[in-house]
Amino acid sequence: MRTEFEFIDHIKDKLHLSAIGDDCAVLPKDADTDIVITTDMLVEDIDFRFDWSDPEFIGHKSLAVSLSDVAAMGAKPTTALVSIAIPERLWRTSFLDKFYEGWNSLASQFDVELIGGDISRTTDKFVVDSIVMGEVARGKAVLRSGAKPGNKIYVTGPLGGAAAGLKLLESGILLESVDTRLQKLIDRQLVPMPRFGPDITQLEPTAMIDISDGLSSDLAHICRSSGVGAKIVADEIPIMDEMSALNAKPDEILDLALNGGEDFELIFTLDAKKNMLAVFEQYNCIGEITANVDSIELITGDRSRELPPKGFEHFS
Amino acid sequence: MRTEFEFIDHIKDKLHLSAIGDDCAVLPKDADTDIVITTDMLVEDIDFRFDWSDPEFIGHKSLAVSLSDVAAMGAKPTTALVSIAIPERLWRTSFLDKFYEGWNSLASQFDVELIGGDISRTTDKFVVDSIVMGEVARGKAVLRSGAKPGNKIYVTGPLGGAAAGLKLLESGILLESVDTRLQKLIDRQLVPMPRFGPDITQLEPTAMIDISDGLSSDLAHICRSSGVGAKIVADEIPIMDEMSALNAKPDEILDLALNGGEDFELIFTLDAKKNMLAVFEQYNCIGEITANVDSIELITGDRSRELPPKGFEHFS
Repeated sequence: MRTEFEFIDHIKDKLHLSAIGDDCAVLPKDADTDIVITTDMLVEDIDFRFDWSDPEFIGHKSLAVSLSDVAAMGAKPTTALVSIAIPERLWRTSFLDKFYEGWNSLASQFDVELIGGDISRTTDKFVVDSIVMGEVARGKAVLRSGAKPGNKIYVTGPLGGAAAGLKLLESGILLESVDTRLQKLIDRQLVPMPRFGPDITQLEPTAMIDISDGLSSDLAHICRSSGVGAKIVADEIPIMDEMSALNAKPDEILDLALNGGEDFELIFTLDAKKNMLAVFEQYNCIGEITANVDSIELITGDRSRELPPKGFEHFS
Repeated sequence: MRTEFEFIDHIKDKLHLSAIGDDCAVLPKDADTDIVITTDMLVEDIDFRFDWSDPEFIGHKSLAVSLSDVAAMGAKPTTALVSIAIPERLWRTSFLDKFYEGWNSLASQFDVELIGGDISRTTDKFVVDSIVMGEVARGKAVLRSGAKPGNKIYVTGPLGGAAAGLKLLESGILLESVDTRLQKLIDRQLVPMPRFGPDITQLEPTAMIDISDGLSSDLAHICRSSGVGAKIVADEIPIMDEMSALNAKPDEILDLALNGGEDFELIFTLDAKKNMLAVFEQYNCIGEITANVDSIELITGDRSRELPPKGFEHFS
């Protein structure tokens, strides 16, 4: 079965769509500014579950995933629209009020204004499409396609927590009885925060993407768009501290950090000649870009192996 | 149960959303231009049915409804995004290819570029969210809120056809055996065309909306936003010729024209002092705006009655 990425490539070729293929589309606004825009469709029982999530969390997460796409372009979010399809069983409750409260609470933190949307009915699952627009200095949107061999690869924060949280939820863990550390993993899954580092764009990254599908897949997107490869060092990949509370082997932890999605940290690449001092303090250099097109090499101790993209896909 | 319009009013008040309430949101672009943006969520078995519609029709209609919103602002569409949630049973077929063919065929007619989107999985109904952006001269977007007592009310074309087409489809009519006239009504439902009249904006309408829910409801939106009322004449409401092929009483035909949705013609209001000559040739003056706030009076012969908004609502 074709994957969603294969389908997107196919439809891009067929309809001659040159603008598609980054976290956001970029449009010229005026002499100084470009607009970015992104849309994310979230579906009940695929992207969230009502037995795990408060309505506020679902509102929060639907906005967070789109804000993260705006962050990945080095842009500042400005406005948003929300379209929903809602079954009557939910319409009759306070669900939607709480959903918008969660949405609005996050929007307020980033000064994002809700300017439109649509309400449709459905006979079945609740669906939300989140649309966010942002602004970035003209020509300064950070694409996936600018990474060059020799560039250093950074991630903005610890990985694996959201996937670990999902595993805990799937295990049927009793939410009332989890300790603080496990709760942090679960929160990372249910109430993710987008990662805006104003200093990142000042560093003029050559490429950037958010980790929504998983490090292995999202770094592969950068490599593919840039026509390059990558070499990353397992020991340099930042792991969420709280994952030590999981009863898991080191290999399982590393697998969650490499292939678990939804951490919404950013991967960015930098010219190696840049002054690294400030960057090292805040972010983690996990490796470098190579000329070995579409190949990602993972170095563990003195061994090296090919890292296939094993992050989340809706169809695989 | 609260209606969707009541909910939108409620959430506008609660979250202090001043920008919401027209066919599109309007954003400043540069010194000469504003951007408009709209989003429309369409759901299988609510907004379309697979046993009635080819995949191409669903692609076409999902774009058409959003183009119609752009037309209702007096704007020109430019770019679009499409988000979908698709069940695996459809993913495995050529459905999505045909969906995008239908979408793209209409997009090409209006020179609209697809710049982004999202693909999610669902366990159940196919859902599409259509997002279209457009441009209009700065400050010239035609809102719902500018109608003034004494303004003439126009519609751009014949009404009732799409609702009649829906009734035929719901009756289980055999599509292979329908005559040309009934087929036109069905086409109006399944493959609607947005109404762009470049000359309309030159007339500087005081208010405009597209007829998606139904004349009675959409005119009521104008009245409410403008703080006015309206008086319309039943005999002046243009009816689709092909409706004479229905085995229906005049009252039933009028009801479809007044309350049937999805014709995607435009209602606009004009200062009565404008030169009407060119307008009369193309469009139908159906009445005038009054100072009788939120009241729509329907005149039939020498009788007059209040016309309640009875168009389509997802929740009522």
